[in-house]
Amino acid sequence: MILKGSEVSRAMKDRAASDVDRLKRKGVLPHLALVRLGDRPDDRTYERSAIKKCEGWGIRWSVFSYPEDTSQEELIREIKKLNQDASIHGILVFRPLPRHIREDAVQYAMDPEKDVDCFSPINVAKVFEGDSSGFAPCTPEAVLEILDFYRIPIEGKNIVVVGRSMVVGRPVAMLLLQRHGTVTICHTRTANRAEICRNAEILVAAAGRPGLITPDDVGQGAVVIDVGTNVDEKGNLCGDVRFDEVRAKAGYLTPVPGGVGTVTTSVLARHVVQAAMRACGESQ
Amino acid sequence: MILKGSEVSRAMKDRAASDVDRLKRKGVLPHLALVRLGDRPDDRTYERSAIKKCEGWGIRWSVFSYPEDTSQEELIREIKKLNQDASIHGILVFRPLPRHIREDAVQYAMDPEKDVDCFSPINVAKVFEGDSSGFAPCTPEAVLEILDFYRIPIEGKNIVVVGRSMVVGRPVAMLLLQRHGTVTICHTRTANRAEICRNAEILVAAAGRPGLITPDDVGQGAVVIDVGTNVDEKGNLCGDVRFDEVRAKAGYLTPVPGGVGTVTTSVLARHVVQAAMRACGESQ
Repeated sequence: MILKGSEVSRAMKDRAASDVDRLKRKGVLPHLALVRLGDRPDDRTYERSAIKKCEGWGIRWSVFSYPEDTSQEELIREIKKLNQDASIHGILVFRPLPRHIREDAVQYAMDPEKDVDCFSPINVAKVFEGDSSGFAPCTPEAVLEILDFYRIPIEGKNIVVVGRSMVVGRPVAMLLLQRHGTVTICHTRTANRAEICRNAEILVAAAGRPGLITPDDVGQGAVVIDVGTNVDEKGNLCGDVRFDEVRAKAGYLTPVPGGVGTVTTSVLARHVVQAAMRACGESQ
Repeated sequence: MILKGSEVSRAMKDRAASDVDRLKRKGVLPHLALVRLGDRPDDRTYERSAIKKCEGWGIRWSVFSYPEDTSQEELIREIKKLNQDASIHGILVFRPLPRHIREDAVQYAMDPEKDVDCFSPINVAKVFEGDSSGFAPCTPEAVLEILDFYRIPIEGKNIVVVGRSMVVGRPVAMLLLQRHGTVTICHTRTANRAEICRNAEILVAAAGRPGLITPDDVGQGAVVIDVGTNVDEKGNLCGDVRFDEVRAKAGYLTPVPGGVGTVTTSVLARHVVQAAMRACGESQ
């Protein structure tokens, strides 16, 4: 069974619609600021998807783009301006930032209440602690949205996460742990990856390596969530999972494109709506 | 082979001695503030161990004890005073705090530079991110000190952590992941715990349940680190591992008492020395 991101996204939009309406009746238009330094193609691609999603949800968006050589101090100043701007509810800073900027210096500048993709250490710590009052990063949360939409249980399941980045691997492991999964984190230094992965009831591929996950890594009937967003030799978007080969063995499988990525921007949109609700004192 | 905490602690003290001397020659005496609300026996026991360790290392200590009904605002005010006090390099707040105080409100008050047991979300986020510039919590770091002292490799090993608390389970999992272990986190909702644990090359028992780990949970020759500090029916300190039964099966095993606990206070002492070094601009 193919787990389609578009169905998950549609349901999320439907669920959020009443909140967006309520805000509009109060004269509040949820508003996302996208902060981009330079012109990385990855960033531009994600920006286009995010804008499209915002427009679909009735969310206002603004792009704040700066030259790639913008200084760290200037970026911090701009983020602080956006923190102060009451018309803006959510801020997304594209990462990785250019090399001359220390992310760990910039992340403190972000208002945690507007930090819709978990850049601030306050939100990072909350994800680690299992405190759901902050904003988790969008991609890991999208993985859980897909599992929940398709009613795939997490509690007590053996779950293997391949990859340990702060963008996906570590936070998705913590979110799944919080939902009572038994979670193993594998990575490039793992000795017996295929064996470990084959034992997973749910396998989350988040290594960022095209074609890494073969049928040998997948147990019969397992749920496989492909978080990879890679570009293959032909320039096409592809995941970490060899879709055509794994399809026969997995019980459930997300495609790339059309899987996690689609849901990620929906989580982003929902975070902006949530941030707007909180800013104007609405309960959720 | 029994992994003795006292040997690890002695080596840590020897390594730190030159730093303590260097600070003293500069007229700086590393100084730990212990902040305690009420009189919980656990806190008093740990306090006595910490004081004894400080005295052994030549570290100054002060206990700031307050009534159990101290208000959250007052506690925050006291912590901020300690932040400001240049004679104090490290602050340890005993946890859990009384129920009327929200830990997540207090933790922001702590200066991350003096936060020697990872209470501030800044340090919590760093542990999650694998950034070693902050202070990890003492007990999880003690587990790594023991493995390193006894030259037990971590990289590429299958490691199972039983327990997912923020005091031990989650942070020790992240520290071991950072050292390239393949880490599984088990907990009360794990379906097949014994089977998973038996596959571990290194098993870290941090559930806080006396006698939880039986020989059935231990693979032949495995390294077993017992982080449990429980009190049995007779009032004696005991770990999570059935020591006498597991001993025959494990390759290496830490006792309780005399294992991780001993090293925990040494990590605390070293953090105080590190904080003092940083405060006076010494490199480490």
